[in-house]
Amino acid sequence: MNVEVVFSEQPLHLQQLTISGCGAIARFDGIVRGLEDGKEITGLCYEAYAPMAEKVIRDILAELSVEHPCERVRVFHRIGFVSVGETAIIMDVHSSHRGEAFALLQKFMDRLKRDVPIWKRGSR
Amino acid sequence: MNVEVVFSEQPLHLQQLTISGCGAIARFDGIVRGLEDGKEITGLCYEAYAPMAEKVIRDILAELSVEHPCERVRVFHRIGFVSVGETAIIMDVHSSHRGEAFALLQKFMDRLKRDVPIWKRGSR
Repeated sequence: MNVEVVFSEQPLHLQQLTISGCGAIARFDGIVRGLEDGKEITGLCYEAYAPMAEKVIRDILAELSVEHPCERVRVFHRIGFVSVGETAIIMDVHSSHRGEAFALLQKFMDRLKRDVPIWKRGSR
Repeated sequence: MNVEVVFSEQPLHLQQLTISGCGAIARFDGIVRGLEDGKEITGLCYEAYAPMAEKVIRDILAELSVEHPCERVRVFHRIGFVSVGETAIIMDVHSSHRGEAFALLQKFMDRLKRDVPIWKRGSR
């Protein structure tokens, strides 16, 4: 499985990608909302130790791909201050059929919050 | 829930959309593969009785939104001949959190194939 991980302080853009034999692309965009833990915020500040975060992301994806084999995964994550309404993460998964793409994507997102060393805090 | 349904004989494009308060966008792109029922094809031909197909799509989404409330859903479907590698359907769902967006999207896709009067046949 081809994996691309990008951390960026700039707005995220995912180039459209066509992979021969893939019939499904599952995608998630996570956007900063105006409320965090019930409090109004102007944005979130994300911090990460990027080399470690990338390694953990790749390990989780390798583990999940055993059960849910997919062709290609891209994880793009903003670092630094992200205003309300801006995208903090984009992830997409290319696979033959949609079942495995959605399974891998959703399980990865659950693990991301729990296991990957990326921290966020709200700014008023 | 705001619903947009489009049938088009032209390549599909979804304009990026930001909705206040929505932290999640789940998206699916379904692409025509080179094999259909184990046979090599050059593309698929989709036929629909559009007014009826749109009504059924809206009914299914209204039903699913009771359990999985979301803000906005777009379903764009190609009609006519779609070559291998081209996108036959794009669907995206905007919601507060990703759980309900993915649940609604996946359940809708299961129902689409079963209940919506859109027919396809492979072309050699």
